[in-house]
Amino acid sequence: MTSTVPTSVDPGKIREVLDGRWAHVRRDARENLDDPDFLPVYGETMQEARERVTRAAKKLADSGRVGLGFPKEFGGEADSGASVTSIEMLAFGDLSLMVKAGVQWGLFGGALELLGTRRHHEKYLRDVMSFDLPGCFAMTETGHGSDVQQLRTTCTYDPETETFDLHTPHQAARKDYIGNAAKDGRMAVVFAQLVTRGENHGVHAWLVPIRDAEGNPCPGVTIGDDGPKAGLPGVDNGRLSFDHVTVPRDMLLDRYGQVVADGTYTSSIENETRRFFTMLGTLVRGRVSVGGSASSATKLALDIAVRYGNVRRQFAAPGEDREIVINDYLVHQRKLLPALAKTYGLHFAQSTLVETMHDVQTAVHVHGQEVDEAAQRELESRAAGLKVAQTGHATATIQMCREACGGAGYLQENRLPHLKADTDVFTTFEGDNTVLLQLVAKGLLTGYRDSFGSLDGWGRVGFVADMVRETVLERTAARALIARLVDALPGRDDEDIPMLERGWQLKMFEFREKHSLEGAIRRLRKNSTTEGMAPFDMFNDVQDHVLKTAQTHIDRIVLESFVAGVDRTEDPAAKALLDKLCDLYALSTIEADKAWFLEHGQLTAARAKLLTSTVNQLLKELRPHITTLVDAFAIPAEWKAARILEEEDDRQEAMAARDAELRAQNAEGTPDGTATAVEVPPGQ
Amino acid sequence: MTSTVPTSVDPGKIREVLDGRWAHVRRDARENLDDPDFLPVYGETMQEARERVTRAAKKLADSGRVGLGFPKEFGGEADSGASVTSIEMLAFGDLSLMVKAGVQWGLFGGALELLGTRRHHEKYLRDVMSFDLPGCFAMTETGHGSDVQQLRTTCTYDPETETFDLHTPHQAARKDYIGNAAKDGRMAVVFAQLVTRGENHGVHAWLVPIRDAEGNPCPGVTIGDDGPKAGLPGVDNGRLSFDHVTVPRDMLLDRYGQVVADGTYTSSIENETRRFFTMLGTLVRGRVSVGGSASSATKLALDIAVRYGNVRRQFAAPGEDREIVINDYLVHQRKLLPALAKTYGLHFAQSTLVETMHDVQTAVHVHGQEVDEAAQRELESRAAGLKVAQTGHATATIQMCREACGGAGYLQENRLPHLKADTDVFTTFEGDNTVLLQLVAKGLLTGYRDSFGSLDGWGRVGFVADMVRETVLERTAARALIARLVDALPGRDDEDIPMLERGWQLKMFEFREKHSLEGAIRRLRKNSTTEGMAPFDMFNDVQDHVLKTAQTHIDRIVLESFVAGVDRTEDPAAKALLDKLCDLYALSTIEADKAWFLEHGQLTAARAKLLTSTVNQLLKELRPHITTLVDAFAIPAEWKAARILEEEDDRQEAMAARDAELRAQNAEGTPDGTATAVEVPPGQ
Repeated sequence: MTSTVPTSVDPGKIREVLDGRWAHVRRDARENLDDPDFLPVYGETMQEARERVTRAAKKLADSGRVGLGFPKEFGGEADSGASVTSIEMLAFGDLSLMVKAGVQWGLFGGALELLGTRRHHEKYLRDVMSFDLPGCFAMTETGHGSDVQQLRTTCTYDPETETFDLHTPHQAARKDYIGNAAKDGRMAVVFAQLVTRGENHGVHAWLVPIRDAEGNPCPGVTIGDDGPKAGLPGVDNGRLSFDHVTVPRDMLLDRYGQVVADGTYTSSIENETRRFFTMLGTLVRGRVSVGGSASSATKLALDIAVRYGNVRRQFAAPGEDREIVINDYLVHQRKLLPALAKTYGLHFAQSTLVETMHDVQTAVHVHGQEVDEAAQRELESRAAGLKVAQTGHATATIQMCREACGGAGYLQENRLPHLKADTDVFTTFEGDNTVLLQLVAKGLLTGYRDSFGSLDGWGRVGFVADMVRETVLERTAARALIARLVDALPGRDDEDIPMLERGWQLKMFEFREKHSLEGAIRRLRKNSTTEGMAPFDMFNDVQDHVLKTAQTHIDRIVLESFVAGVDRTEDPAAKALLDKLCDLYALSTIEADKAWFLEHGQLTAARAKLLTSTVNQLLKELRPHITTLVDAFAIPAEWKAARILEEEDDRQEAMAARDAELRAQNAEGTPDGTATAVEVPPGQ
Repeated sequence: MTSTVPTSVDPGKIREVLDGRWAHVRRDARENLDDPDFLPVYGETMQEARERVTRAAKKLADSGRVGLGFPKEFGGEADSGASVTSIEMLAFGDLSLMVKAGVQWGLFGGALELLGTRRHHEKYLRDVMSFDLPGCFAMTETGHGSDVQQLRTTCTYDPETETFDLHTPHQAARKDYIGNAAKDGRMAVVFAQLVTRGENHGVHAWLVPIRDAEGNPCPGVTIGDDGPKAGLPGVDNGRLSFDHVTVPRDMLLDRYGQVVADGTYTSSIENETRRFFTMLGTLVRGRVSVGGSASSATKLALDIAVRYGNVRRQFAAPGEDREIVINDYLVHQRKLLPALAKTYGLHFAQSTLVETMHDVQTAVHVHGQEVDEAAQRELESRAAGLKVAQTGHATATIQMCREACGGAGYLQENRLPHLKADTDVFTTFEGDNTVLLQLVAKGLLTGYRDSFGSLDGWGRVGFVADMVRETVLERTAARALIARLVDALPGRDDEDIPMLERGWQLKMFEFREKHSLEGAIRRLRKNSTTEGMAPFDMFNDVQDHVLKTAQTHIDRIVLESFVAGVDRTEDPAAKALLDKLCDLYALSTIEADKAWFLEHGQLTAARAKLLTSTVNQLLKELRPHITTLVDAFAIPAEWKAARILEEEDDRQEAMAARDAELRAQNAEGTPDGTATAVEVPPGQ
């Protein structure tokens, strides 16, 4: 139950909570990453954007801020959490630069480090870090985006020459949408089917030169350009095809699978599928970075829309000497505030995810411990789920902010068009959101027992039989706190429990997930015993139900992280405000799915109406703090690059003049004698 | 109740129904508007786009297809419906050209024709039509977009010189987002407060030269450039400020208000507000065109996504020798098909609106009849409501289609990024959607008695008292048919009525609108008698409820138009298919607002679940016809300009090869011995 929020809350106190474990990385970025070259430029051509971003990437490399995730012996800090946090901060600047950096140091460099071995590190890692060796991450093919296990590119070993033969069998197998390919890339980590001694050992990765020192394509390599995109003009996405390209044996990134000179294949992981998903699992950082970057762009869009809404006016208040600013309208609050609340929830969930990722990866890659497969799979599922939630929220929220700023929101000089266009692809790259939701669902259905990060979700017919019988919700890191809050609920009827009771909110989220999951399992079982039903249809028939289950799961993870975030806030005023914002997240999420709760007897009609008025009441209470809530994101003013914010002073002045006019008019009466400036005529 | 749809339906038969009254205009465009210069170009700079679109506009003028709405004596056809239909067709091409044409011949030319008098027509109309006189429609100001009645620009008459003095008092009063201003415009229709003899007579319009023959700004005119936008790069939006610019007396567009030489003001409409809204009301065509254009862009996006979904594959079907195309997935169908159904509904509603508009405007402007104020206001409300519905649907649907095409949807060569970026502003220009919803609501609350097209909605405190006591829903043109269908409902309990009964669907839509409207009125009345409640709060407190009422009203209008469209379809197969699509529109709309129907006792929990499975069943039945449904839009192949559609053949070939591989693999078994190519390992 929330208490009253003091009139004034220090945004700095909220920022401290948001900044969390890698606060030093955020602080460093705010203070030192103030290079105007890292900001977007409006109105440039694709060519200009690409050249500028290449220069900026080099400058960023020179700043020494790109190596946080790499091993210490190569000049890095072996700090996985810091590397993701620094990408999040970079995402407040030009998103083309963020993606370019993500490709170079996250995907290309990350694959080289995590799939390669010492000889690869020693030979290439320094040049990767300095951007002297720009590279690509060539996984996706035109014909297969999500089903990586079924890539068609082959790489066949020949013991005679001790080389591999890398080949693109047909157009649909060309590598597509590859960042750094169209202009800069000199090498690529290429994913292909490894064939040796006539046997296919599944997808592996090779380090392959694609351009020579003069920038010309290497023999057998065809490089295409994806051309202009919706956004991200500074990223040179392209296409790569290989016509029997010779690759030396030692260019296989062989941490998880080796081919000796005579063509014998060895691996410490016998099962091909498990090996594949182990390799892929090491690359989870990319997905975590995309989610975090989406949230940064969302915060910036909200910052702009909230400040604009504080000064933008539309109509005079009837009978009053002032025009209303648009943030005063209920419907405007209904757009901005729930989005802001969810942004906070996602921030806390992302923080927890980054901590988990850091701990799991540090154990394996720094301390050399065995992989904890259960922890790894749960991490992958969380990363997938939060990537879906954050990128979906970014697309919806940035769109809403653009519209909330009216015509001004459509001008590039006000930043929102760039935020929208650049982040739009986040819902489809690093895993398509629908496919990722399926991955999350699969983990839930099987209790993470055999999901292996597979994106298909419905691979094996017999898989229904393996489904867990008991649906016990694993709880998040905040489990003790959550249990305490739920257990504290009074025994009385739900009907009487105040909706601001945190325990009730948590219980609603839990119930929905559990019930939805149980229903999905029941329906899948039933289909699997239905005579004559094709295996595809068994799953397809419940696909909507199953994806919804995944969604409810993610909602709960976010709420539990938010609750834990409020709990660790020390400043009483900040805590009271976050507490109320958490109420808004919880209740507006329940409200958005009110039909489900009504349908399943968790809300009566009367209580459903009470829910709407409670949300409206929360909006009223949060309205005075809306600026504080964006101030707490602590986005440096010079990073915002939105002209409407600079014009704030002009506008304030013009509006003060306008208010004076209104006062004068109201005193005099308008020409046709009524008392207010804006009016409708007295009937016909 | 729908019958079974035959296996094969001729899309041509559906096209005939869709084409409607101005079929000849649509046919002419499909056959003769095939100039590649009218298609978008990808990757050009803003400058290049502007120049190309200026050339294309001139070419379009030369084709003689821009004058349909203008008087016959100036070479037009005085056919208001044809002019809107031709804009709709133009919207399948480059949307920058459509907007440029809309500005030149719709807004600028339309204002000149409808607000000006004979001397203006004779002197300028031919040059406007030939594009020898490019012009602007200078209404919106930076500080006031929606509240046109409160524009700050003044135009003050001086009887000494017999001229007006046009002046921008401060920066917030500059004209902003004005199409044709930054580069091409030679004159502008400028809206400003008319002041004469010390008295303000409200907003009027003047024809004002802004550039001389050399293209330099006229004395006192400052022209700015809005620069690059999210989209519409070929439209030269700009800003205009006037520093005491002298405007001759005869440049006042004086159909509705005149100033004689000595400064005496005369008008046939005494009340200033009524005069203002009469003037604005003549300009309704712009809003109708934007709605129709949004629908064209939506159809094109759906066309692309549906065809791509027919060939795009992702995963193998378990245990089968084929990969599934993504249109086979339930969740993909849930994205595409309800959007397609709504697009059809909106098409029929738009057709009805255009017919009404044509009849109302022809009566007044061609046959010289008196304005039927009730009909005019209802027309304005419909135009506002359908503009909101169509542009909102366009934004959501094009976004969905972009995502449904994955990475390919992010490349400009596949058209979707342009469709998205260009249409994005449609929700805010020609009336902000939230403000327009308020206008619709106001019409409903007052029974159209004193709305006058005012956008503020809440102008006068006392207006609650004027609200209609009886909420009788006026019915659409299809009223007899609708009444028959509703009356045909059996007397038994709702619980037993099949959901595919059209009468039940109609009744649900009606009930929701009526109940919502009555509730809004009740709450407004209560607030108006609440001691100490500020007038602004009386309305703001129920703003969400009131806007929802407007939404339910629009939904009903659309359903009734859809039902009438099905009814007039003659071909039995086409009719059966449209009938089923209409079911999907009705039931997916009810499903989207299921919470409301549950909350208000119109659905039981059991029936709410049945609703979901009925929608899924409809998707299954419509799936085989999905291509027919986009074929019926009859968008010429050469207009689509999407490379993924051209690559269809390549893709089909590659996929056939892939199926052969799968068959071979399934016959052999995969390396680790399981039976399917894509699988998960057998437990841990």
